Amino acid sequence: MTGNSSNVVWHHATVNRQRREALNGHKSVLLWFTGLSGAGKSTLAHAVEEELHQRGCRTFVFDGDNVRHGLCGDLSFSIEDRRENIRRIGEMSKLFLEAGVIALTAFISPLREDRQRVRSLVPHGDFIEIYCRCAIGTCESRDVKGLYKKARAGEIKEFTGISSPYEEPRNAEVVVETDTLSLEQSVALVIGQLCERGVIPGGCDV
Amino acid sequence: MTGNSSNVVWHHATVNRQRREALNGHKSVLLWFTGLSGAGKSTLAHAVEEELHQRGCRTFVFDGDNVRHGLCGDLSFSIEDRRENIRRIGEMSKLFLEAGVIALTAFISPLREDRQRVRSLVPHGDFIEIYCRCAIGTCESRDVKGLYKKARAGEIKEFTGISSPYEEPRNAEVVVETDTLSLEQSVALVIGQLCERGVIPGGCDV
Repeated sequence: MTGNSSNVVWHHATVNRQRREALNGHKSVLLWFTGLSGAGKSTLAHAVEEELHQRGCRTFVFDGDNVRHGLCGDLSFSIEDRRENIRRIGEMSKLFLEAGVIALTAFISPLREDRQRVRSLVPHGDFIEIYCRCAIGTCESRDVKGLYKKARAGEIKEFTGISSPYEEPRNAEVVVETDTLSLEQSVALVIGQLCERGVIPGGCDV
Repeated sequence: MTGNSSNVVWHHATVNRQRREALNGHKSVLLWFTGLSGAGKSTLAHAVEEELHQRGCRTFVFDGDNVRHGLCGDLSFSIEDRRENIRRIGEMSKLFLEAGVIALTAFISPLREDRQRVRSLVPHGDFIEIYCRCAIGTCESRDVKGLYKKARAGEIKEFTGISSPYEEPRNAEVVVETDTLSLEQSVALVIGQLCERGVIPGGCDV
């Protein structure tokens, strides 16, 4: 047994968030990207992750791809199930925070109440809401997945921004104008915030 | 922007499990502790985590405390809900593996089929089943939480080992005789296995 732990009998956790953060050399936070479909949440989240990884940070991005087919594979897209979806993502993010990881989530998460619930789930200051603000016209003209077209044709019901509301954040920690900023500028904005908040060490230049 | 990434536009994840494992200096695996209530699963899992953390590994323990009140707070202890509980833990563990973390779980998980389902969920070789084998008499005589007493009195229905089956693993990667081995010996057994499998680097002496 390493160190002087020979006579210790553990019953409870001895490794906690603080010790993990010390090992990692950075704090863990939850970066919650929200915005319309096509606003660039996922692209920005992955680009921020790349930058953080290159700086030696432990990171993980949650998005539809790795959550909707797995943990939330039993849920539909009804209002109720979308709420349960966000709840589980919030609870899981909380465990990633405990694990010392910078968790990034890229979900439309259109309802203020749902985002607020996740915010109140994690310790104060650990929830960093990043609003990817983009005019719906821009999102619709991109329409990478062809979803807006389907929504306009009535093939998708309750599509956010078309037939279902998107409630803009009122107090997002970061607002990224994704229809005017480049991806590089957007990444710099987020990384700058993490430096200022003391989440990651070192220079704030990106 | 660090390095030569200035002209890259990301749409998908660029940080993957391999890069995270390289950053961490160890592989990620799922250590699935199973056994009767009172067999020492949680104690052993936390002691193994302590040893791994001291060796500089990224770890996280899932147990009733951090899962049952959060992610699975909506579930009861019915057969169906216990199955859903294990499913969600499996799916979440899979994401922790992706995140480069050594995930340790301490749940009775009495049914072979449920454990098998989690095993088949993660890449081949990443599921390490650790059977904490302990005579039920020993578990019952410890009865740390007073649960056996309640089960015998009929106050708890479907209590594993008393009124509900525990299906012993047939091919556990590690069997720990927790009623005869000391905690130190048990930890050494698990750590030795992780060294032999190349999960963690360095000396296998504990």
